[in-house]
Amino acid sequence: MRASIIRNGEFVVDQLAKPEPGSGQVLVRNLACGICGSDLHLFSMLKGAAQQPDMPSTDFVLGHEYCSEIVAFGPDTQQQLAVGQRVCSIPFLKTKEGQDGIGVTPQAPGAYAEYMILSEEYLLPVPDHLSSEAAALTEPLAVGIHAVNKANLKGDEIALVIGCGPIGLAVIAALKMREIKTVLASDLSPNRRERATMVGATEVINPDEGSAFEPLNQRLDEKPAPTVIFECVGAVGLLQQICAETPAHSRIVIAGLCTAEDSFMPIEALRKELSIQYVFYYEAPEFEQALNALADGTISWKPWLSGKVGLDGIADAFDLLKDPESHAKIIIEPWRDGAVEPISS
Amino acid sequence: MRASIIRNGEFVVDQLAKPEPGSGQVLVRNLACGICGSDLHLFSMLKGAAQQPDMPSTDFVLGHEYCSEIVAFGPDTQQQLAVGQRVCSIPFLKTKEGQDGIGVTPQAPGAYAEYMILSEEYLLPVPDHLSSEAAALTEPLAVGIHAVNKANLKGDEIALVIGCGPIGLAVIAALKMREIKTVLASDLSPNRRERATMVGATEVINPDEGSAFEPLNQRLDEKPAPTVIFECVGAVGLLQQICAETPAHSRIVIAGLCTAEDSFMPIEALRKELSIQYVFYYEAPEFEQALNALADGTISWKPWLSGKVGLDGIADAFDLLKDPESHAKIIIEPWRDGAVEPISS
Repeated sequence: MRASIIRNGEFVVDQLAKPEPGSGQVLVRNLACGICGSDLHLFSMLKGAAQQPDMPSTDFVLGHEYCSEIVAFGPDTQQQLAVGQRVCSIPFLKTKEGQDGIGVTPQAPGAYAEYMILSEEYLLPVPDHLSSEAAALTEPLAVGIHAVNKANLKGDEIALVIGCGPIGLAVIAALKMREIKTVLASDLSPNRRERATMVGATEVINPDEGSAFEPLNQRLDEKPAPTVIFECVGAVGLLQQICAETPAHSRIVIAGLCTAEDSFMPIEALRKELSIQYVFYYEAPEFEQALNALADGTISWKPWLSGKVGLDGIADAFDLLKDPESHAKIIIEPWRDGAVEPISS
Repeated sequence: MRASIIRNGEFVVDQLAKPEPGSGQVLVRNLACGICGSDLHLFSMLKGAAQQPDMPSTDFVLGHEYCSEIVAFGPDTQQQLAVGQRVCSIPFLKTKEGQDGIGVTPQAPGAYAEYMILSEEYLLPVPDHLSSEAAALTEPLAVGIHAVNKANLKGDEIALVIGCGPIGLAVIAALKMREIKTVLASDLSPNRRERATMVGATEVINPDEGSAFEPLNQRLDEKPAPTVIFECVGAVGLLQQICAETPAHSRIVIAGLCTAEDSFMPIEALRKELSIQYVFYYEAPEFEQALNALADGTISWKPWLSGKVGLDGIADAFDLLKDPESHAKIIIEPWRDGAVEPISS
């Protein structure tokens, strides 16, 4: 099968042996796979590692935001879904020892390839009317639903979403699902602010034109309410800015992946009695809830999608995604080749 | 009246005008006042400021952990308590504009003096059988009760208290009040570990002999349970240590006052979905609950107390308190002079 492989720190399209499903496993053909911000992080780490001398390179196939179709069942499977059924799943492959993250570990290659192996137990059928690219958004939407669940909302909160990349958009969508009335969203990029509005933000803020907390505090002056901040950027220094500018007693939910050391003044957080909840992934029921919300039209998913690309265009897509102005979510169609084609929302 | 004043960065005992109670206010005579860790912080800041050239010095009277007796009522008071009644109160003085923190701002001098002014509305009578030095512990105990309340305990948690100074002891006492069965406590000082055991810690840990999280993880291996960490130290680097070593999904309650910039690796917190709740002060009902717990014997308060001192011995007491081995809580008796006398628990 053809796959886009990270090898020696670069993407190469090459042939790999078609994988064989083991006990409880299913072979699937990949129809659509989103490029995640964490894929960009991981690629950059692998690129860095490849530049170290004497570092052996292991082939790495990314892709954990997929919609695929069942091709064949391995031994010890229930086979309640038919061959040809489109599916998505939480990106974990069960093993004798536990489970491996699909598309984020070399042990469980992901959907940047024609075929891959999934655990039958985790499969969810994708309704016929839902397109494969929309179903591939289940995973990032689940991240947003989980972040909002971890905020323990009562319904009267004012929310500020900092960063309107795919995770920020998912958080905004999940806040709308929870009927939170006031959802402010902040991003430097006009493209992202526009997408945030389309997903349901009630007010968008350009932090270059003033603190994102100013409109928040204005709202609070009109009507006091608990405040919840969703940090969906992951940049060094942002926690300190939030602590310094957010109202007392704010809840801060951090979904942004900051891989570097960060520093802040804890006394600001102490004086304001802030609470900080870090969030990562989601629970299986939240994943299912995300798929249902996409299928029943609760979520307006089109503002997420900005492009499609074939297997041989992934390296270019990664370059494009570094610029928030040009794209939001690019979906790979691993069954074909082709350069990035923009999709207008 | 005599008062111990911070003037030009040093303690001096000097005469000040006896204050006059204004509208809704009461003049009290101070019977006992605890020295708080934050008093040490504040003194050191004022000392630093006094060393700056051309820095005008404002007289500053500390003392926010007090038991006092009513001497006289100002205008517009209800006078439901009698002159001579012993009282304590949340350390806030109501003003036309809002309120000032007593003993932590120059506007509202504290109990390191023979007399001070309190707001009548906040006064709580101290029961006759409760000694004044025990009643002076109401304030730090309220801090512990508040920290434990903010942890949203269900009752099945394993708690680890890091730092067994007065706040750590208050947290341990509050955890016992909530009938938390497993309360681990960690401190470098044998003196403090011994006091922690007397207050109710079920196991004490010397972090010099291995990570405080090792016994925690051993307990979890025996019986999985939610974990709550109470950080009662306030040292730079401790948050990173907690994030690196604590089990996934731990709740971390931070009561420790860290006034410097701190740094950590947020990815550790993210991967483990840690939650961090900063806590500061308490609510008025928690203060009342603390007084009741001291009065009804729920709290074994003697392990807190390590010494008493008169007005002219405060500078020495501050020096002694820098060494955790020699003391825990020193109570000032502002109506007399005298050097620090140890109290054995």
